[in-house]
Amino acid sequence: MKTNGTVVFQSDFGLVDGAVAAMYGVAHAVSPDLKLYDLTHEIPQFDIWEASYRLIQTVEYWAPGTVFVSVVDPGVGTDRKSVAVLTKTGHYIVTPDNGTLTHVAQTLGIAERHEIEEAENRLKDSQHSYTFHGRDIYAYTGARLAAGLINLAGIGKKLLSDDSFVHPYTPAIITGGVIEASVDILDARYGSLWTNCPRDLFSEIGVKYGEYVGVRITHHGRIVYGNDLKYGKSFSDVNVGATLVYINSLLNVGVAINQGNFAKAHDVGAGREWLIRFEQTVGPWSIR
Amino acid sequence: MKTNGTVVFQSDFGLVDGAVAAMYGVAHAVSPDLKLYDLTHEIPQFDIWEASYRLIQTVEYWAPGTVFVSVVDPGVGTDRKSVAVLTKTGHYIVTPDNGTLTHVAQTLGIAERHEIEEAENRLKDSQHSYTFHGRDIYAYTGARLAAGLINLAGIGKKLLSDDSFVHPYTPAIITGGVIEASVDILDARYGSLWTNCPRDLFSEIGVKYGEYVGVRITHHGRIVYGNDLKYGKSFSDVNVGATLVYINSLLNVGVAINQGNFAKAHDVGAGREWLIRFEQTVGPWSIR
Amino acid sequence: MKTNGTVVFQSDFGLVDGAVAAMYGVAHAVSPDLKLYDLTHEIPQFDIWEASYRLIQTVEYWAPGTVFVSVVDPGVGTDRKSVAVLTKTGHYIVTPDNGTLTHVAQTLGIAERHEIEEAENRLKDSQHSYTFHGRDIYAYTGARLAAGLINLAGIGKKLLSDDSFVHPYTPAIITGGVIEASVDILDARYGSLWTNCPRDLFSEIGVKYGEYVGVRITHHGRIVYGNDLKYGKSFSDVNVGATLVYINSLLNVGVAINQGNFAKAHDVGAGREWLIRFEQTVGPWSIR
Repeated sequence: MKTNGTVVFQSDFGLVDGAVAAMYGVAHAVSPDLKLYDLTHEIPQFDIWEASYRLIQTVEYWAPGTVFVSVVDPGVGTDRKSVAVLTKTGHYIVTPDNGTLTHVAQTLGIAERHEIEEAENRLKDSQHSYTFHGRDIYAYTGARLAAGLINLAGIGKKLLSDDSFVHPYTPAIITGGVIEASVDILDARYGSLWTNCPRDLFSEIGVKYGEYVGVRITHHGRIVYGNDLKYGKSFSDVNVGATLVYINSLLNVGVAINQGNFAKAHDVGAGREWLIRFEQTVGPWSIR
Repeated sequence: MKTNGTVVFQSDFGLVDGAVAAMYGVAHAVSPDLKLYDLTHEIPQFDIWEASYRLIQTVEYWAPGTVFVSVVDPGVGTDRKSVAVLTKTGHYIVTPDNGTLTHVAQTLGIAERHEIEEAENRLKDSQHSYTFHGRDIYAYTGARLAAGLINLAGIGKKLLSDDSFVHPYTPAIITGGVIEASVDILDARYGSLWTNCPRDLFSEIGVKYGEYVGVRITHHGRIVYGNDLKYGKSFSDVNVGATLVYINSLLNVGVAINQGNFAKAHDVGAGREWLIRFEQTVGPWSIR
Repeated sequence: MKTNGTVVFQSDFGLVDGAVAAMYGVAHAVSPDLKLYDLTHEIPQFDIWEASYRLIQTVEYWAPGTVFVSVVDPGVGTDRKSVAVLTKTGHYIVTPDNGTLTHVAQTLGIAERHEIEEAENRLKDSQHSYTFHGRDIYAYTGARLAAGLINLAGIGKKLLSDDSFVHPYTPAIITGGVIEASVDILDARYGSLWTNCPRDLFSEIGVKYGEYVGVRITHHGRIVYGNDLKYGKSFSDVNVGATLVYINSLLNVGVAINQGNFAKAHDVGAGREWLIRFEQTVGPWSIR
């Protein structure tokens, strides 16, 4: 897959200082013709899981050949690898191999994976800088890859494509009409739960739009929420302030309060310890 | 008016997750040559009034032919229309027709208005996604419009240009030397009041730079603030911490504290219920 | 130095309203071919010192010929000058001459300096707007400079290059094996201290990676922090939660807590009143 001259940056640097602008400067100096965009720079500090999720929220909407540079790097200076990968969807990701590729490996698949040879692929005169690989290694290498000045082979030695460092991840399963899934992430600003249960799996429990689904959320064995919720096409299928189950924009099952914040209302977080169960139910507030 | 290959995005999505980047990806995939920029993504959630105002704060500073995509859409999934309009100033706006065009209709005027035929103008394979029209409909359609792949006629059937859904809006008036206006919006970070009283109307009460103007703010009949303020050219015409009346960057009357926050200091909000009266006065702290 | 068609914006406007987008619109209308990027718009309100620092954090990473437009302008409307300067590194900066060039003058050097003739270099029809020079003067002039429509001579009369308005600034010095420096800025999101002591000066006290350095921070004579800290290459050379001295990404000495926030933990601020002393020490927790 040829790169297409576009770099999309993600980090946990925030936008309040010059860190992101320094990465942009490096990329622009590699080639002023590159198109430079942001995924987000507001990943919570050191939150590799969220960085991993934001990639699958966006990567596939960009044209194949786009290069993503993701820098959430609590281990800068350790022996964590720096890699450039090509996904099976034709997108490139340049990142520390520290779990950032967890969801990408799981849902898009990794076709090719190379370790960045840092001695060569490093901003000129940056050899005494040990704390900002985002600028010195990742932005520089991602930009050279996007500009076609280098290819994966030139970046460094080929590694096993399936051997990325990933966090444990349990896909949703269905057993006897009951789906066991997890809350993969929160839809940050709106507080909706985004689960890892795909629409196709959900359809197997046979609930139709307008009908009710039994929802139970647990955290380390404790029941945090249990209720029967309407399954709607969109938020407007319930009243403002009412709760619903819906299919989110990534075609996974979500749980939300229309114009409210479900996560805040019920103190629910995200990650594989936040389990969520769906099953058919005869109606709202049924005894179970 | 030919579009000029530029899309400017506005939303209430914030920048902490991948929602904006997904819209950018869709637009970039429509045509990598598009120029993609932001108005803001920090519109308070579901605040259509503020989205409406931010358009008139910016649209005219962009070249005619620029396409704005504005997505503050609490009614996604209802029967609110999706439209693309051409303003009388030659700018395009693609948006849910939910009040977002209130100020644009009032101050720029709408020359042409088309309903987006969503069955055709929709991101490929997005038919099962009902909650993210920003990505699936508006970014996609705005990008195609900006890239010249489609024109207004191709977007959908022509509607009456003057028939946008708008919020009630009362322009400022002058009666017997007294101006009755409203606080249209707050200058967010600085806390200044931006009223809907144009400079030309204000000049009719005959106050000159350096002279004083009587200001009274009411909210649902209650007097929130009443004082005689200096009319300055710029903040620096009064001491740091002092209050002034001035002409803001949109050539409307503003009220501010030099390097302070008027809205916070006096607990003033914005919207048509926040009335503000201006009249000539003989000097500061005069009896009235 | 020819400009390269790129403008990088900095301000204290924030991104919540349309101010930045209005500047972008003006620049884009000057020439749609310009490449427009951000340094940051989250400079704390009116904080000229921080604006000054963010320039040296980033300018040199951009290609020579890039034009920076920096607008932190509490004195809009006063007689503070508006200038365009060319640095000795070949970068342009368009800004109010209010101290924003303090660090640039000190570390990059100013080769040429011109006062903006505001009557001519002003957005068309903006003569009644006195409060938004960012849009009407700086963005407009910076864009015309970047697009090659004007050069420094066309901007206005040449001033003495060394005569910018700058804040007092004391470089780090070494006396008898003791370095006296100051905390130049905080690494905002991570809370690390970034001092003005360059790596080369620090090396003169003879501390090697893995050894300890005596650190003392004072504020107006009061000792705020005093301890012996490990000198590490990178954060990972100490445990999570442990404190270290390191060389930051600008090759100055930094003080940080690995994955913590040193500034918050010890209530340390930045600026020339925050003094920091480094000296060799025999080991951790030595008596002094």
